Amino acid sequence: MAGNTFGNLFKVTTFGESHGVAIGGVLDGCPAGISLDIEAIQNDLDRRKPGQSAIVTQRKEPDTVEFYSGIFEGKTTGTPIGFAIHNTNQKSHDYSHIKDSYRPSHADYVYDQKYGFRDYRGGGRSSARETASRVVAGAIAKQFLGDMKINAFVSQVGELQLNKNYTELDFSLIESNPVRCPDQETAAKMEEYIKKIKKEGDTIGGVITCVIQNVPIGLGEPVFDKLHAELGKAMLSINAVKGFEYGSGFEGVKMKGSAHNDQFNTDGTTKTNYSGGIQGGISNGMDIYFKVAFKPVATVIQAYDTIDKEGNKVATQGKGRHDPCVVPRAVPIVEAMAALVMADYTLLNRTIKL
Amino acid sequence: MAGNTFGNLFKVTTFGESHGVAIGGVLDGCPAGISLDIEAIQNDLDRRKPGQSAIVTQRKEPDTVEFYSGIFEGKTTGTPIGFAIHNTNQKSHDYSHIKDSYRPSHADYVYDQKYGFRDYRGGGRSSARETASRVVAGAIAKQFLGDMKINAFVSQVGELQLNKNYTELDFSLIESNPVRCPDQETAAKMEEYIKKIKKEGDTIGGVITCVIQNVPIGLGEPVFDKLHAELGKAMLSINAVKGFEYGSGFEGVKMKGSAHNDQFNTDGTTKTNYSGGIQGGISNGMDIYFKVAFKPVATVIQAYDTIDKEGNKVATQGKGRHDPCVVPRAVPIVEAMAALVMADYTLLNRTIKL
Amino acid sequence: MAGNTFGNLFKVTTFGESHGVAIGGVLDGCPAGISLDIEAIQNDLDRRKPGQSAIVTQRKEPDTVEFYSGIFEGKTTGTPIGFAIHNTNQKSHDYSHIKDSYRPSHADYVYDQKYGFRDYRGGGRSSARETASRVVAGAIAKQFLGDMKINAFVSQVGELQLNKNYTELDFSLIESNPVRCPDQETAAKMEEYIKKIKKEGDTIGGVITCVIQNVPIGLGEPVFDKLHAELGKAMLSINAVKGFEYGSGFEGVKMKGSAHNDQFNTDGTTKTNYSGGIQGGISNGMDIYFKVAFKPVATVIQAYDTIDKEGNKVATQGKGRHDPCVVPRAVPIVEAMAALVMADYTLLNRTIKL
Amino acid sequence: MAGNTFGNLFKVTTFGESHGVAIGGVLDGCPAGISLDIEAIQNDLDRRKPGQSAIVTQRKEPDTVEFYSGIFEGKTTGTPIGFAIHNTNQKSHDYSHIKDSYRPSHADYVYDQKYGFRDYRGGGRSSARETASRVVAGAIAKQFLGDMKINAFVSQVGELQLNKNYTELDFSLIESNPVRCPDQETAAKMEEYIKKIKKEGDTIGGVITCVIQNVPIGLGEPVFDKLHAELGKAMLSINAVKGFEYGSGFEGVKMKGSAHNDQFNTDGTTKTNYSGGIQGGISNGMDIYFKVAFKPVATVIQAYDTIDKEGNKVATQGKGRHDPCVVPRAVPIVEAMAALVMADYTLLNRTIKL
Repeated sequence: MAGNTFGNLFKVTTFGESHGVAIGGVLDGCPAGISLDIEAIQNDLDRRKPGQSAIVTQRKEPDTVEFYSGIFEGKTTGTPIGFAIHNTNQKSHDYSHIKDSYRPSHADYVYDQKYGFRDYRGGGRSSARETASRVVAGAIAKQFLGDMKINAFVSQVGELQLNKNYTELDFSLIESNPVRCPDQETAAKMEEYIKKIKKEGDTIGGVITCVIQNVPIGLGEPVFDKLHAELGKAMLSINAVKGFEYGSGFEGVKMKGSAHNDQFNTDGTTKTNYSGGIQGGISNGMDIYFKVAFKPVATVIQAYDTIDKEGNKVATQGKGRHDPCVVPRAVPIVEAMAALVMADYTLLNRTIKL
Repeated sequence: MAGNTFGNLFKVTTFGESHGVAIGGVLDGCPAGISLDIEAIQNDLDRRKPGQSAIVTQRKEPDTVEFYSGIFEGKTTGTPIGFAIHNTNQKSHDYSHIKDSYRPSHADYVYDQKYGFRDYRGGGRSSARETASRVVAGAIAKQFLGDMKINAFVSQVGELQLNKNYTELDFSLIESNPVRCPDQETAAKMEEYIKKIKKEGDTIGGVITCVIQNVPIGLGEPVFDKLHAELGKAMLSINAVKGFEYGSGFEGVKMKGSAHNDQFNTDGTTKTNYSGGIQGGISNGMDIYFKVAFKPVATVIQAYDTIDKEGNKVATQGKGRHDPCVVPRAVPIVEAMAALVMADYTLLNRTIKL
Repeated sequence: MAGNTFGNLFKVTTFGESHGVAIGGVLDGCPAGISLDIEAIQNDLDRRKPGQSAIVTQRKEPDTVEFYSGIFEGKTTGTPIGFAIHNTNQKSHDYSHIKDSYRPSHADYVYDQKYGFRDYRGGGRSSARETASRVVAGAIAKQFLGDMKINAFVSQVGELQLNKNYTELDFSLIESNPVRCPDQETAAKMEEYIKKIKKEGDTIGGVITCVIQNVPIGLGEPVFDKLHAELGKAMLSINAVKGFEYGSGFEGVKMKGSAHNDQFNTDGTTKTNYSGGIQGGISNGMDIYFKVAFKPVATVIQAYDTIDKEGNKVATQGKGRHDPCVVPRAVPIVEAMAALVMADYTLLNRTIKL
Repeated sequence: MAGNTFGNLFKVTTFGESHGVAIGGVLDGCPAGISLDIEAIQNDLDRRKPGQSAIVTQRKEPDTVEFYSGIFEGKTTGTPIGFAIHNTNQKSHDYSHIKDSYRPSHADYVYDQKYGFRDYRGGGRSSARETASRVVAGAIAKQFLGDMKINAFVSQVGELQLNKNYTELDFSLIESNPVRCPDQETAAKMEEYIKKIKKEGDTIGGVITCVIQNVPIGLGEPVFDKLHAELGKAMLSINAVKGFEYGSGFEGVKMKGSAHNDQFNTDGTTKTNYSGGIQGGISNGMDIYFKVAFKPVATVIQAYDTIDKEGNKVATQGKGRHDPCVVPRAVPIVEAMAALVMADYTLLNRTIKL
């Protein structure tokens, strides 16, 4: 209830602060009998980890996951999978610049107001470091999902948009550049732009597009737990996300119904896919695709005024090693959350008929 | 789990199909001691009901709610509030045009695939008629919330946008026109446009903006259950919704962090509000505002080809009395879902400190 | 959370007070495609209803269930089944004897303390009338369970015990006498005893034994949600229940492990069944059996002293038409709750393997 | 859902097998601001740990808990408390005697049937080792509960009963003997008896009584989530438990209502307490007391016949270092589960009034 659990049947509970001993989680409800590829899990963690390229934060955290339970002789046992990632970058920092003052557009102020005090060593629980635990659980979900393929990629950085439909893209190129944009030309421009922003000590927002393919028909529940509603919540729960749209999205509001309707082929597939693979909250077997908007990271390496706990104005200077643009590292997080949703609904769908 | 319940502590479970005996629900967890204004509840239902103006469906349904429990001497008792709205428009229609064929971009096809069969009399459970039950529960939530004010309005119909910031608007004008747009000039244009679309037998999408004011600081949970994640899920669970954004939303991705950060005033309020009243998933006391994108309704009154259960192509003709544009009637639904989220998080917030 | 929902996947939410407009509920998660025998549901309600024999309360309530949704052409649709039982016995009673005073061993006092006030017309939500809604949901669960057979019967009234193992009994005799004890001789003694107690204006406790047969192997979860733990909670949630034991129960503590262990036959069945059909929280395919202890009903038709809201001593006189012994009418309630648990775990068990 | 989580608002999720790397858990929903006494937590673990006396298993496991998150400067932060207890006793045992055969009255057989295979190194997830994680969470719950006092003790071993009402006992004597029975004379007899049973290579059952004092009025929900129903589930979820009764329990069924009713004193307390401190599922401020029945442990150090996976009869010999009687070590587990229930309902009770 305090919101550290995601999913109902295939569900993960995470724990850990950015500057504590360890982060980690418990994945409960993962079916028995899955042959786990541990390397693939670590590989997704590596896609998320700091320091992987010149355009992300230069913090060094190996983010090595240890499994404590739920796996025996290489297979899941059906019992909860406990895991931890020890924090290696815990050295006693100087927090004096944030201990008593509130960084704008961070959670510092609301934490103090909500809980009465806060762990001032970095973002605590609101740090995006928490998402490493999601990546572990999501990587297991991917393996459970088998043929269902989930690919996320960067489709916008600031004003720079990837102006191609996802069907024109080669997903195997996503990992070929540090931006994780599968169009090399656009990726190069984005990379350059992010470097420029970084030099300014500033940050910039971006958009991630995610495509889910080979989806069975019938996943999703008709009313409150529509498939896209849960995907939306999953994405909006990722740090810095400000918007979610699927299928025709916000642009679709401008269309007429006669044009927007996806006419059937005789095999049940549709000629167009404005629905984004989901109708009435239930997957129809077409590709699911959606977009996730990320705001510019709040930590800028510039001087600014803010307030302290007593409401006094204080001059401060942003410092640290932060991401100039969060989307390249957020790609595996988007995939992980999508995988968790699809795994959960896959299990739920087994229960609906006699 | 089958997704007919929304909320954790202040939670509503709904039941009912568009062409069954009744729809209704159970609101559980509503605190004891609220003096209920039953008229205000019926008033919100009337704002949602068909036939209220020339630009909505002309079906006649009085939508009168009956309360069965949970209220005694005008006050909530803390026990579950059971309620029902009997369907009065159940006369035996001719369903032959939809019984064996699938309407495009409706849930017909996926229902048959998911459950093995479906209630072919209208949309069954996927009909937006279900949202009447949400409006009842949401209207009670509003009364629980007291001073917190939730106002939704139509900000876009097709290409027609209301080009004003919400702070420039007079919310008391929302109900002054059938579109529910608080700018009379824009509302008139929208109304005319919807009438034109209706004449064509077509439909058009739209956007609803919602503003929540007088929000206490501290509502929302830091990780999976961020306040905006739950608001997003709530909105995406409404029929025809394709997108959700809050604060700076999709436009915010183009901004630099230095410009996007909301600098503090010495009283803890912020000079700008790109955050949309939520930081790190927790309300900061500023106005919460978000946008919800609705696709054009799938039922068009035109001839088109589709397929039947055996995959044969069949020529069909849309008929019935449907909304040319769903957003005017969806305004109270958006408010209701927002109220349910805020009520749930208000209760949860009582449990977080010693 | 406020505790009006039972079950996770096959789950019922109930509403309604003893003296309100109606009681009822929503059964969510019931799989699609079950051919419902409505008469069988009403039959279970009739087994629970007041006035059915000389040894139960003489109140007259027909307890006719109306279904509002979730059933189409005689089959469940997979959507929530909403139902209500209107209260016909609502005539304006004289509540002056209980309005301001607290009946001992009733919930009157704790309700006032917990909620700040209470619905003083009878027991409100704590009335056993609520269990009629459980019987409806449980009767549907029984039909979902198919071959699994659930039989409950009265095995003790006061000091009178049925001294036979359940395997010696003919369950078809349960309904042959008003006590619902499948041994005619013991039943006759119990009936006479209850009549005597009734004449005294007093009440007496009893025990119900429940046997579940044809249980598949593998139902139940190993840790917190052990099958017997959920059965125990289900039974303890029934009004007036003070104890639950399964298999060897409290007597089993006196046995040595070497005698208590159920040795295997070569087909996986066991020679004895001290385990009560459940090992490590998981069904092993043997009969599940358990006992449920009911206290004597608190309402006695005698004069006694109690206190009013201000703590003043008041002399009062119990009146009304209450059960001298609750167990005959509680038999279908025990069966209903058992069926709900078994249905829930049957669905859950579909999700545990790859 | 897979049943590794207990509680709704104050909730613990546990992980770990008896022979894996570590066991542990995540406590979510623990309010912020509790000054934690870590030593008291370790102390409860020590009361549960093997090897503590001559009458328990002689396995050596230090059971040292490590905290990973949720605590800052000695106080809970309101974020999830992740913790682990590394298994130090993992040396590669010889499991050949159990790998392919099923121990009677253990979960071996049902695990294989349910999941398709099992972790044959000891009991895996069904080992009582899992309860160490519960003790950690429960010890934190105790500290949250403040003045509410929870004392459990051994009241029966085999046929040997402690024939005193709990009000006659001095709880400070519970820890004065290895049996954890607060009556020295009875404790001595029990100890001797357990030693005798151990020498025989056999095991014996027992009963634990638990008393909760200083309980506020109003905890518990009226219908499915009655306070005693949740306490019952909590106790029945502990390994080897076969029965639960509270207040007058199974003996109460023999009483008449006129005698069983707890008459009020003018201050709202009652003259007797057959209700066991709970009326209508809600605490009434009197002491809560209940009994928990434990079967004799299934592992006996004797020769017996059983079956292997193919259903062949195999002669085997029980070995290992197991408890001859489980109740002395189960005392802190009963207390922990009781504390978790009381903490959960304490938080829930904050949400029920306007």
